[in-house]
Amino acid sequence: MPKSTRAGIVGHRGYSGAELVRLLARHPRVEPVLLEHREDHPGVPAIRNRKGPLSLPCTAEAVTGAGIGLVFLATPPDVSMELASAMLDAGARVVDLSGAFRLRTPENYQAWYKELHTQPALLAEAAYGLPEFCRDRIPQARLVSNPGCYPTAANLAIRPLAEAGVIDRSAGIICDAKSGVSGAGRKPSLKTSFCEVTENFSAYSILKHRHVPEVLQISGLTEGEFSFTAQLLPLDRGILETIYFRAVNADSADALLRIYEKRYANEPFVRIYHAGHMPDLRGVVRTNFCDLGLTLDAKTGRAVVVSAIDNLVKGAAGQAIQNMNLMLGYPETEGLL
Amino acid sequence: MPKSTRAGIVGHRGYSGAELVRLLARHPRVEPVLLEHREDHPGVPAIRNRKGPLSLPCTAEAVTGAGIGLVFLATPPDVSMELASAMLDAGARVVDLSGAFRLRTPENYQAWYKELHTQPALLAEAAYGLPEFCRDRIPQARLVSNPGCYPTAANLAIRPLAEAGVIDRSAGIICDAKSGVSGAGRKPSLKTSFCEVTENFSAYSILKHRHVPEVLQISGLTEGEFSFTAQLLPLDRGILETIYFRAVNADSADALLRIYEKRYANEPFVRIYHAGHMPDLRGVVRTNFCDLGLTLDAKTGRAVVVSAIDNLVKGAAGQAIQNMNLMLGYPETEGLL
Amino acid sequence: MPKSTRAGIVGHRGYSGAELVRLLARHPRVEPVLLEHREDHPGVPAIRNRKGPLSLPCTAEAVTGAGIGLVFLATPPDVSMELASAMLDAGARVVDLSGAFRLRTPENYQAWYKELHTQPALLAEAAYGLPEFCRDRIPQARLVSNPGCYPTAANLAIRPLAEAGVIDRSAGIICDAKSGVSGAGRKPSLKTSFCEVTENFSAYSILKHRHVPEVLQISGLTEGEFSFTAQLLPLDRGILETIYFRAVNADSADALLRIYEKRYANEPFVRIYHAGHMPDLRGVVRTNFCDLGLTLDAKTGRAVVVSAIDNLVKGAAGQAIQNMNLMLGYPETEGLL
Amino acid sequence: MPKSTRAGIVGHRGYSGAELVRLLARHPRVEPVLLEHREDHPGVPAIRNRKGPLSLPCTAEAVTGAGIGLVFLATPPDVSMELASAMLDAGARVVDLSGAFRLRTPENYQAWYKELHTQPALLAEAAYGLPEFCRDRIPQARLVSNPGCYPTAANLAIRPLAEAGVIDRSAGIICDAKSGVSGAGRKPSLKTSFCEVTENFSAYSILKHRHVPEVLQISGLTEGEFSFTAQLLPLDRGILETIYFRAVNADSADALLRIYEKRYANEPFVRIYHAGHMPDLRGVVRTNFCDLGLTLDAKTGRAVVVSAIDNLVKGAAGQAIQNMNLMLGYPETEGLL
Repeated sequence: MPKSTRAGIVGHRGYSGAELVRLLARHPRVEPVLLEHREDHPGVPAIRNRKGPLSLPCTAEAVTGAGIGLVFLATPPDVSMELASAMLDAGARVVDLSGAFRLRTPENYQAWYKELHTQPALLAEAAYGLPEFCRDRIPQARLVSNPGCYPTAANLAIRPLAEAGVIDRSAGIICDAKSGVSGAGRKPSLKTSFCEVTENFSAYSILKHRHVPEVLQISGLTEGEFSFTAQLLPLDRGILETIYFRAVNADSADALLRIYEKRYANEPFVRIYHAGHMPDLRGVVRTNFCDLGLTLDAKTGRAVVVSAIDNLVKGAAGQAIQNMNLMLGYPETEGLL
Repeated sequence: MPKSTRAGIVGHRGYSGAELVRLLARHPRVEPVLLEHREDHPGVPAIRNRKGPLSLPCTAEAVTGAGIGLVFLATPPDVSMELASAMLDAGARVVDLSGAFRLRTPENYQAWYKELHTQPALLAEAAYGLPEFCRDRIPQARLVSNPGCYPTAANLAIRPLAEAGVIDRSAGIICDAKSGVSGAGRKPSLKTSFCEVTENFSAYSILKHRHVPEVLQISGLTEGEFSFTAQLLPLDRGILETIYFRAVNADSADALLRIYEKRYANEPFVRIYHAGHMPDLRGVVRTNFCDLGLTLDAKTGRAVVVSAIDNLVKGAAGQAIQNMNLMLGYPETEGLL
Repeated sequence: MPKSTRAGIVGHRGYSGAELVRLLARHPRVEPVLLEHREDHPGVPAIRNRKGPLSLPCTAEAVTGAGIGLVFLATPPDVSMELASAMLDAGARVVDLSGAFRLRTPENYQAWYKELHTQPALLAEAAYGLPEFCRDRIPQARLVSNPGCYPTAANLAIRPLAEAGVIDRSAGIICDAKSGVSGAGRKPSLKTSFCEVTENFSAYSILKHRHVPEVLQISGLTEGEFSFTAQLLPLDRGILETIYFRAVNADSADALLRIYEKRYANEPFVRIYHAGHMPDLRGVVRTNFCDLGLTLDAKTGRAVVVSAIDNLVKGAAGQAIQNMNLMLGYPETEGLL
Repeated sequence: MPKSTRAGIVGHRGYSGAELVRLLARHPRVEPVLLEHREDHPGVPAIRNRKGPLSLPCTAEAVTGAGIGLVFLATPPDVSMELASAMLDAGARVVDLSGAFRLRTPENYQAWYKELHTQPALLAEAAYGLPEFCRDRIPQARLVSNPGCYPTAANLAIRPLAEAGVIDRSAGIICDAKSGVSGAGRKPSLKTSFCEVTENFSAYSILKHRHVPEVLQISGLTEGEFSFTAQLLPLDRGILETIYFRAVNADSADALLRIYEKRYANEPFVRIYHAGHMPDLRGVVRTNFCDLGLTLDAKTGRAVVVSAIDNLVKGAAGQAIQNMNLMLGYPETEGLL
């Protein structure tokens, strides 16, 4: 079968971009094309008896000329703001993996990202790409904003319970999040140096991480109700969030798990653990799954949810391809199972 | 200076016991003696040009004969119950590192450890060895029960704040705890196999860990107010606990940090981070310190404490030596700085 | 496309067996069936909204009844000797991943594996499954013996150079091999416990590893010419071998690399690095590739080859599927790229 | 006991420098003083209730004014060349941990370090600080050049055997060296980023590492006889070298081990393993020991030595303190056991 769509990847030497290249190589209908744009990371080493994917400069001419129908921006927010309109003008649809188009207003963006939003019209136009809750707008969208890794795991865990009214909001919802180091990107820094991370564990951005507003937008919680701490695990890939709340209107873990089961009955990428079992990172790494488990202490009403994803797959490249599949009319799971 | 006390170590091939041997080798006043008791772990390899410490069978005769003044039990609870009275009868004082003598009643022990307590008289006699809060009873005690690793980090973080009345107990206190693998002991098991742990992270004993009652005993919280989750980090040593609560009667992180500073002004092993900084595991591993840091969102009153220790040092062998120093009238920090 | 062959996997809860299940799930023509045979490892956790593959007892009746055409034995040598004939009698062809059928004579087996070979007739019949050098006998074989992980990396590196006469055998060939921990299997042991392996590195089976005779059989070297040391890396998957020899009849790295290039021109799973570059584990993990690189100090004639594979893929499950593809007449790379 | 010598540390925020600070804090006779010189690494976080060591600018005035008797340069070679004479002029003796003063001639330095040596007179004066083989010149030296980490492990393993005439030099000596990441220093780089190193293993500087001439200088081997490969382990600290040679004039491992035993009978920091056992990194990390083990295949004469050290201790800071002890007339092991 000839691959029927060419998809460009800007930022293909970063971790999310490289994961896109790796996943698209297996996609039966899409041919990945590397778009070079001020890349400062080294690429993969050349091998004598192998050819890599097509590589082009990241220009409107190249995109048009090569017939590229969709471009993934695996770039920082400022680069995404710059490139999104250029790529759209070149006739390509865009899935942006940065935070540039995730918040609903330029004001909110400026408050959390500490810089002016230069593309308010595109921000207004962008569809938020969490298919499990926003699937209707994605197929027609020119520009899809791929969710952040932490909010993906948090929203898939929290929103069904919040909608079902089983969370006592007055007591607060705590999300204690742990992430692998690839979430910090490929740019060398002391904080992500091997010797600083191995055999270590540390918290950062406590109560003020820029992913917080994305959780509020989708879950419906208010800032006062939601505490979020990000922490760095000494491992490459994966996010696990331990979420604490007080349950109301539910008297067993099973009752709460059935809410998930019902909500995600037709979702190919959300898996629910049996009561008494909890997801771990091994179960989701290198997959597009979000795994959910839940424990309830019926006596006190205290509940704990564990939500696990691969930050580079369901938290970035995999979800971006899921969005691409929806945009191009392909089966949603194509290339992802 | 001749070493003036001989201290026996039962379980010296396990991780806590081996750490005792390592630390005591540096102690200027104490000579470690290995007491062999049904050891099932292999020991350190023999080296041609070195001699190891004295090794004896773990019998009353050997203990008396060698003039051993104090015995550390780095053994499981059932072995500790069996050996504690034998060692006391042999004239040695005892520091027990197991959970056998930590809870105040045999009933509570049975409820959490799922087995009968066979030494209720010793349980009643044992002094709980958290020097920062129980220093008065330790010097005279025949039997000191060394605290659990998780409760050490939790109680040092929570009790000063609870005493100061700055915790809104009605909203609950969450302790999200992460531990290195050595906390699970040296006995091989699938759960602690390298390939199951590396690049993985998982939760266990959610809301029902047997260390919970130790936290309640010292902190003064009730079971209904306190949620505790233990999680396994892909690293050897260290515990970091992220503790969430709603602050009352305090309007800044600094105000809360001053409570710690005042309470721990004369404590050699508790360090307080400046506001805006948080401890990590690197800072405490291979030390007897407990490091504390705190953040407060003044707008919402939500507070986060990070408490970090080395589970084998302040969480086990180091604290045991701190207790031994108090029992023997040595400077409390001897051999530990 | 309906999956046209059912393939049974015995030992599917061990690391190689689980990798077989994972890889076959993606194979378009083969349906994996779990065959339960005295499994002592726990399996994957049950998930509420997912079904796993078909599971059957490992009996002749079940194999015949389910129409299983081929069985993978991911079992220890003694179990493989027991099951191979039973599975063949049940009408299935067999790919054995153990060492049971790799050596050419029962005597050699007994010398290196320290136990009697109970199936000498099958040993004589078995085809050695290193496709790059033994492809002719595999398609017709009833029983294929999948190569060991260390010998796969060593033979692909050494044999082309030995055949080309560029190795000075009188000076000896050194193979310093490093392996991830999964190579030791899933059975818990102190040697593979997390705390013993992390931040550690150690040698084992120095000069007497049971994989040595497999290297000699295929490379044509004699025992006196070949030194082999196995070492344990603190990581999950991957083997990297650093191979030292004195080069003759070759005056540049490029000349030696061209020998590889020519020999492997049509091999889909052997990749050759350009001079000045060397493979690492990242490049091969979770692939069926063997990556080769080479450096020559022209002044002294000393040469170094680096050969890297994933021990669970090209070193076990992937190569087993490569053999299966050849046996069943499928494209050799099916399900493996 | 008042600490009787003040020792300055330049580069105290790098890994070797920080290890010096850590080790000197325990030294009973030496007070560490931090000398600030264009430090680009962040230091340790400030703690509210603790004071750190004295900190001064790295100037001649400060060194003289504070009565600093000895300065450790834990700096790159070019900085060491610049500072060594300044510190000597300020009246301090110097232990340099860089490669600036290790080779015997400026020409050799230029050949391997690819830059001009700007201090040839100091190069001629410097004593090479491998106490086990150069102890005579160290006590009087103004400037001691601390050995490289790889050469320390290699020379302690090779020289006694070379001197005893049991190595067949015509067959070549292979040193396959593996190092933890801290050996590369604290400056962030992609090669030492966590995600590039974890679950990876790679070779570098094959056959041309700048530590090679140090091995040749001390061991007496020629460049043509010695092959050296450096490789990066996914761990923080430690070097393990696997050394291959053909033995002559020795018919058992024990005979070779006795050569070590005799040579190192009075050496406090070299330990010899019994035949059949080999050192690993765990045994030496955070110690100043070099552990040696050896295997011989008597049939073929092939021998393997394993030599293990902590690259930051015996390979850097520990050995530097050992040299300082010799220079200041303190017991050689002071502060190091």
